[in-house]
Order: sequence, then structure tokens, then C-alpha cells
Amino acid sequence: MATDNQPKSATLRELAQMVGGRVEGDPETPVASAWPPEDCDRDSITLVDRTESLPRLAGCPAAAVVAPLDGPATGRPTIRVASVHKAFAAIVRHFRPDTTRRISGIHPTAVAPPSAEFGRDVSIGAGAVIGEHVVLADGVTIGAGCVVGDGCRVGESTWLASRVTLYPGTLVGERCRLHSGAVIGADGFGYRQEAGRHVLAPQLGTVEIGDDVDVGANTCIDRGVYGPTRIGDGAKIDNLVQIGHNCRIGRHNLLCSQVGIAGSTTTGDYVVMAGQVGVRDHVHIGKGAVLSAMAGVSNDVPDGEVMLGAPATPLREQKLKFAAIAKLPQLRKEFRELKRQVARLQAAVTGAGQAGDEPSVQAEEKRAA
Amino acid sequence: MATDNQPKSATLRELAQMVGGRVEGDPETPVASAWPPEDCDRDSITLVDRTESLPRLAGCPAAAVVAPLDGPATGRPTIRVASVHKAFAAIVRHFRPDTTRRISGIHPTAVAPPSAEFGRDVSIGAGAVIGEHVVLADGVTIGAGCVVGDGCRVGESTWLASRVTLYPGTLVGERCRLHSGAVIGADGFGYRQEAGRHVLAPQLGTVEIGDDVDVGANTCIDRGVYGPTRIGDGAKIDNLVQIGHNCRIGRHNLLCSQVGIAGSTTTGDYVVMAGQVGVRDHVHIGKGAVLSAMAGVSNDVPDGEVMLGAPATPLREQKLKFAAIAKLPQLRKEFRELKRQVARLQAAVTGAGQAGDEPSVQAEEKRAA
Amino acid sequence: MATDNQPKSATLRELAQMVGGRVEGDPETPVASAWPPEDCDRDSITLVDRTESLPRLAGCPAAAVVAPLDGPATGRPTIRVASVHKAFAAIVRHFRPDTTRRISGIHPTAVAPPSAEFGRDVSIGAGAVIGEHVVLADGVTIGAGCVVGDGCRVGESTWLASRVTLYPGTLVGERCRLHSGAVIGADGFGYRQEAGRHVLAPQLGTVEIGDDVDVGANTCIDRGVYGPTRIGDGAKIDNLVQIGHNCRIGRHNLLCSQVGIAGSTTTGDYVVMAGQVGVRDHVHIGKGAVLSAMAGVSNDVPDGEVMLGAPATPLREQKLKFAAIAKLPQLRKEFRELKRQVARLQAAVTGAGQAGDEPSVQAEEKRAA
Repeated sequence: MATDNQPKSATLRELAQMVGGRVEGDPETPVASAWPPEDCDRDSITLVDRTESLPRLAGCPAAAVVAPLDGPATGRPTIRVASVHKAFAAIVRHFRPDTTRRISGIHPTAVAPPSAEFGRDVSIGAGAVIGEHVVLADGVTIGAGCVVGDGCRVGESTWLASRVTLYPGTLVGERCRLHSGAVIGADGFGYRQEAGRHVLAPQLGTVEIGDDVDVGANTCIDRGVYGPTRIGDGAKIDNLVQIGHNCRIGRHNLLCSQVGIAGSTTTGDYVVMAGQVGVRDHVHIGKGAVLSAMAGVSNDVPDGEVMLGAPATPLREQKLKFAAIAKLPQLRKEFRELKRQVARLQAAVTGAGQAGDEPSVQAEEKRAA
Repeated sequence: MATDNQPKSATLRELAQMVGGRVEGDPETPVASAWPPEDCDRDSITLVDRTESLPRLAGCPAAAVVAPLDGPATGRPTIRVASVHKAFAAIVRHFRPDTTRRISGIHPTAVAPPSAEFGRDVSIGAGAVIGEHVVLADGVTIGAGCVVGDGCRVGESTWLASRVTLYPGTLVGERCRLHSGAVIGADGFGYRQEAGRHVLAPQLGTVEIGDDVDVGANTCIDRGVYGPTRIGDGAKIDNLVQIGHNCRIGRHNLLCSQVGIAGSTTTGDYVVMAGQVGVRDHVHIGKGAVLSAMAGVSNDVPDGEVMLGAPATPLREQKLKFAAIAKLPQLRKEFRELKRQVARLQAAVTGAGQAGDEPSVQAEEKRAA
Repeated sequence: MATDNQPKSATLRELAQMVGGRVEGDPETPVASAWPPEDCDRDSITLVDRTESLPRLAGCPAAAVVAPLDGPATGRPTIRVASVHKAFAAIVRHFRPDTTRRISGIHPTAVAPPSAEFGRDVSIGAGAVIGEHVVLADGVTIGAGCVVGDGCRVGESTWLASRVTLYPGTLVGERCRLHSGAVIGADGFGYRQEAGRHVLAPQLGTVEIGDDVDVGANTCIDRGVYGPTRIGDGAKIDNLVQIGHNCRIGRHNLLCSQVGIAGSTTTGDYVVMAGQVGVRDHVHIGKGAVLSAMAGVSNDVPDGEVMLGAPATPLREQKLKFAAIAKLPQLRKEFRELKRQVARLQAAVTGAGQAGDEPSVQAEEKRAA
């Protein structure tokens, strides 16, 4: 599965030195690849990040393990480190250098007009198309096949993977990562009806993305009507998310895959939306609120509230509702039983002549009416 | 935030003249940008479209305002007009010319074979790829990076933004707008099982899009099995929508973001589907029906019906259900109370010896069984 | 609607010979196109695959029909065959040759480095970009505008439609079809919080797609954290699907449009997920399980189970719940009636002085508290 043609075998000692770890067992153990336990060969090093993960080593042919300083015995040569993931990531990168962002210079097939301004160390991939008056700051990488519209500005060290679209006038901050297929700045979905036809309302705004924002693959963020649609600093947006025109997404939001947010909705800082959440237009999601997977939100949500279900309801309340629904068939059964009991009781109290008046029959009559 | 290098400052008088408005206050007020109230600088003009929006001006540094003819005082220099949005849109375009569709001519890096036929004023962006026998009518714009398959025909004045795919044989009407990443004509999702494997059923049809249709970013419309998947004139489709093979979407439908419609489903004219609606295959949604956000529709819907929830239910009925569910925990509490009351009553009527026979105990026994 | 410039008229006899069928009626009937009943002209041939479909012929101007060997009379010249769809598909292809995969050779505008290795009959479309050390096996077709990252390997006869992205290190098996806009190998959505910021966890793995896998338009499959995200042989994935990092999708799964599967979730063989299903992270969906449309799954699902609703519940149980919910407003009405009856009964038994103690009043008091 190597994606590189030069084997980079190393001894456990060399790897431990690289990550500042302590060797347990034979330091001359040769290692040629790094994978999670399920994917190892006999020449692999793998990881155990906590005691509960030890069973994943059973049956794993790995030659060595990266494990926490004070963790349990692994039964094979081990590198002990304070941060398992930091160390293992470094080892993985050693064996499989990550070339995802590796482009250097401006590819001869890229298209860019003289009016575009590039900082130092700007890289542009094959076939990318840069518009008039675009400004790319130092260290910006634009992947193959991207289309960056007129007047866009992209901040320092930001990376557009391949095939990203920025419509004209889009602003992107520093250190952002935009994944393949993302579309930033398409028209919002606003129409007025005129003589039986839907006529597009003005869609003349832009999109402004803050610093340290990640945008997932095939995600769409629409331009504002007159002003910007805004994504706050540090927000992380997953794949296939839709953000409507005029939205103002707060800082450090986490928006999981397939979330949809309709126009003009705003969120406070540190909002979390789990997968497939839907939020209607013109509402506000308060700071630190959490919308659980598939929640359907059509009203403002207070700061810090956790919402569940569709229509979305505060967590505790919704759980009571779900529990009550789960027991509803049983409740109906018990209810019919109680009605019969009451009918019998009534008959006992008022005499047999009243028996035809029992509630279940009344109910049937009402239903038929 | 200017996306253009030439400042286009104007006086209020000049702007009023441009939009046919009446000046209130100093006609020489200089204006250099146009934004909604939340995004203004001191040299901006902004808008108030109705009395209720006046509070948005509080704290806004704008130099001037566009407001309705008979609206309330705005407290600053104002242009009075009959249609605020029409006038403000024109002013925004003056300060920030919209270059979204600005391509002229056929870019030297575009690829097109001699068999393709182009009308007058056809523009094709950088890197776009045009197939054999493609016909592009007068005034068609094909954005950068689009792929237009063999035999496609695109009607007058239609615009494909960048990175749109038309599979071979796709027909697109006049005055359509297809946004970036849209994929028209991929194979439908139809398989038959053969010896434990899923085998793709024939997917040999096309897609036919009517006139005045908008298709959102990253939206997918699959080709029919043998014939066309059809989108009616005037339909407007938002981002990330899925329309399955053989669907026939009526005229002037509004399909909001992330809607999914399975194969062979048909809709009448003027159907509205709000965000994240799902519709199963082979059903018909009647003329003028409205499917509320996240509705899950698995049956035909009559003309004009409003559906809510999953499974989708007529609005009034679903609201009763939602209300009943919201009060269900309370109902359970009351039910337990009533059972106790009936048990006491029964004991009073028939004597203490019967107390062990009370319904709640019966219920527990049933549950355990 | 022809997508080809050469008319290919044929007689019914010629078509019957082509598909090994038996002619009923005039064998010299001329035919010039093939469409489903709703889209025919007078020179078309159409199909009737079973008796129930006969009404679709009413009003259809088609000159001829393809019908089953032992089917009912069609009232017009007919080709009788054992497999209607196989025969009709061949006839459709005769009149409208499917050029979807027709690329031959390596287009001069495609970009590929000397380190890439190509088998026999490899075709690469205009503007496609191939990375370092990429290996394309015999008969691979890479569509226009695709971006194939460093170190990717693509198996025999696999087809990437236009504008597909493979991030570096992606492995794709044999005979796969990846539709336009698909993004394979973007970063997973995993963050840890550090000093109030979300910091991307290592995303250093790959994606491994088995043999005979179909991937729909604009679908996203994220790379694993350290190892591969895996798609099993024969899996068929529709448009706009999201598959999170580290997922292991079993063989022959059917994942319909807009399904979302969060990270590290695994599925057995032959799992079916209908449209818009959501599955949380770190769960297992058992072999042969079926998740109905819009199901929201947050727990393991046993082999063969059919799940419905959100939260997902076994089919039978969920149907009881839905039925109970549908009758809930009626239940509430009957419950109030029963309470009144019990109150009257209680009054009759214990005397009028107890009337103020009736349950509905207690309930109201509780509600107010």
C-alpha cells in the first residue's frame, strides 16, 4: 500500500529517537510501515493509545507498538511516549510522506491574468483558473482545477485542494483548508413570484471566510444578498454542508456532514451541529448550543442548549418524549383494559342496564362519525 | 471589501438620478459603497425596506439610506423610491459590478471539436471541454472547467457557471442558470441482483431541462433509464439536491437545498419542497403541494396539500400529532393516576379482597410475559 | 432528441434479428428511434415489460413494441423476446450509441509526469491531472478534468467520469465506475480542542475501494486517520453520499442517495441503506440489515434487521409506534372522556362531596406547578 517508491525502513531505536520516545524490547527491531492494528503486516509498527485498545493487538502481526509512557505491557517491542498520536503521526509521515498539499510553483497550464497579485511561495496547480484582480497572500496553495473568480482575496498559508470554486469577490482568511469540490459564493435561493413565475431576487453579496476555517468536500456556502455571508474564525465545516445566503456563522463552530442552514440564520461561538441537522432561515442558535444529529430546528435556540429530534426539543424533554413514544403501544393496551374495567365497575354500580353505554363503544361511534 | 480597483464615488444626487428616486437631505452627500446596515462604513449607503427594519439603522455609520416613498423618517440623507430592492440592487451593482458571468469569447485553453456548433456571442471559459456535436445557442456562457458531453444542446442565454458537468445527450433550455459543481445526467441508481452481485440496469436515457430553470451548486440530476428525466420550465432547484432517474418535475417547482427525490417520481406545477425533504420513488406530488422541511414522503400527495413530518402527514393532522406527543409524558402520568383512582374505586365497590387485581399490576405482568 | 448526427433507421425485422426476437405483424415496419411510451414519436419503438404496463401504450404513437414472449397482444407490430429490457436496451443503444465512456487515447491537454505508469488502452480526457507515481491498469478511463493524486492506483477497466478527485494514495479496484464530482480521500472530520481552538487530528490514511464498486456523483469518501477507509467489493453508492474516515463498508452494500455514515462505522455484506439515512460513528450494521429511508441509527444493528425511523427502531416495533402516534389525538380525547366517567362514578359511589377531587383538576394543578 506504499504510495512512495523509496522504502524507508528504520530500526525501532531510530524511530524512538525521531519522536523522543523510550524503547522497550529490542531496539534493533526493523520497521518498514506504520498502520493501525487491523491493517498491519509483519514489518509494521502500530499503536495502542489506551488500555481499552489492547485487545485490538490480538492477532495483529505488527513487529512493534507505540504506547503511552505508563501504559500496560504490549507483549512486543514498544516505543513509550507521552503523546501516542503525536508520535505515531510522525512515524506514519516518515513511512508515507503526505503529499496532499505538495505543489510547488505555478503550473504552466494554470491561467492567471496580469492583474492578479501573488505573494511569496504561492503555488498554483495544473489547470487552475485565476480571475482578474485576485490577491493571493504568501504561502497560498491553489490546487489543480480550482476556479478563483475576479476580485477574490485569499489569506496567508491557506490551501485550496483541487477543484474548488470561489465565485467573484470571495474573501478567505489565513490558514484555511478548503477541500475538493467546495463551492463558495453561488447565488442564494431567493425568489419572488411575478405573474406566475419565480424571479431571482438580487444576489449581489459575497462570502467572507475567517481565519483557520476548514471547509469540507462538496460543501456549498452561498453569497449574501447585498452583503457578505460570514463564517467566523476557527469554524470547521464538514463535507456536503449547505450554508444559505446572509448566514453569519460564529467562531469555532463545528458543522458536521450534510448539515443544512437556511438563509439569514446566525450562530454564536462554539456551536456544534451533528450530521444532517437542518436549521430554518432567520433564527439564531445561541453560543455553545449543540444540535444533535438530524435535529430539525425552526426556532431560536438559547445559549448552551442541547437540542434533539425534529421538531428539535431540549434534550431532556425529547428523551422523555422518545421514551413515552416507545411505550405508547403498551399504554394503548393498558388504556383499553382500564376502559373495560371502568365499564364493568360502572355496570356493578349502576346496574346491568347501563352496560351498552361502555366507553369503548362510544369511542367507536365517535370514530365512525 | 471592494472587489474592484477603481473607486466609483458618487453623490446622493447622482445615485438618486440613476434609480429615479427623490433626495431627502443633502444631495451632495458623498457615497462610496453600498451595504446592508450591519456591514456599513461611514461612506456607505444602506437600505430600509420597511418600518420594522428601522432599528437595524441604530449604530449603523452609513452616510445615507434608500427607503420607501412613504416610509418613516430615517434621520439621515435618504433616497426615496417606489421599489427599495430594485433601486438598492442597482446602486450595489454601481459600486461592485457583478462579474460573475463576465466571460467573453472562447478561451484559448477551452477544448472544442469541429463538430460542435456555436451561435452568436457564445463564451467559453478556460479549460472547459466541449464534446462532439454539441450545440450552443446564441448568448450561451460556459464557465471555466465545465465538461459538456457529446450531443448536448444548450438553449439561448443559458449560463453554466464554472465546473458544471453535462453528461452526453443532455438538453438544457433557454435562460437557465446552472451553478458550479452541478452534475446533470449521471447514471441512475438501479440494480438487479444476479448470483449475489448487483448488476447495473440499463441507464441509457438523458436529462431534459426546460427554460428558465435554475440548478444549484453540486446538485445532481440523473439520466433516465431509456427516456429523459425532465425538469419543467421555470423550476428552481437549490444546492445539493438529488433528483433520481426518470423523474418528471413540473413547471415552476421550488426545490430547496438537500432535497432528495427517488426515481420515477413526478410532480405537478408549483410544487414547493423545503430543505432536506425526501420523496420515495414512483409517487406523484400534486400541483401546488407544499412539503415542509425534512418531510419524508412515501405516498402520493394530493394537489395543494401541505405535508409535514416523517412519515409525512397533512399539516393540521401532523400538528395535532406533534402537540399530542409533546403532552405524552404528562398523559402517562395522568394515566397512572387514573388507574390508581379506579383501583381504589374498585376496592371501595367490591371490597379490599380485590385490591391485588388492580390494572397496573396486570400491566406489569403482561410486560414481563 | 437524437444525440448523434447519423440517422440509423431500421426495419422491425432487422431489429428483431439484432436482439434474437420474433416479429409479430409487419416485419417491414420502419423504426427510427426507441423511447419509453411517454416519449415516443410515430417512428419510435417502445416497450411493455409486463401486462400491468399495457395501459401506458394508450395514446402512445409508437410504430412498434418490444414485449415478452408470452405477453398479451399489444395491438401493433411487436418484437417478442425472452428479456424485454435486455433487448430494448440493445435497440436504444443502436439508435443512440452511448458515448458516455467514449474517450480514446491520452488527450494532449492532460497532464501526467514521467513517473506515472499506464497499462494498455488507458484513456485520459482533456485537462485531467495525474500525480507522481500513479499507476493506471489496462483499460482504465480517466474523464476530463479529473485530478488523480500522487501514488494513486486504479485497477483494470475502471472508469472515472469527468471531474472526479482522488486524493493522493487512493486505491481503486477493477471495473469500478466513479461519477462526476466524486471526492475520494479528503480529510476526515476529527478535531481535538486546544486552548479554545479546534485542532485537526492526524488525517494520514487512505481510501481503498474494492472491485466492481460504483460511486455516485458528488459523493465523498474521507481518508482514514492512519489506515484506510475501505469500501468492499461490489458495493454500489449513489449520489451525494458521505462516508466518514475509517469506515469499513462491507461487500455488495447498496447506499442510496444522501446517506451519511460517520467515522469508524462498519457494515457487513449486503447491507442496504435507503435515501437520507444517517448512521453515527463507531457502530456496526450487521450483514443483510436494511435501513429504511431517513432512518437515524445510533446503535449497532443486528444481522438481517430492518430498521425504520429516527431514532431507528426495528420495523414491526416502529410501525406499531407510528400507528399509535397516528391515533394519539384520539387516545387523548378518549382519555379525557374516561376521566370524566370515572369522576362521575366516583361521585356516585362516594357522594358529591368528592367531586372536587377529580383527576382532570389534579392534572391541571400539576401542570400549573
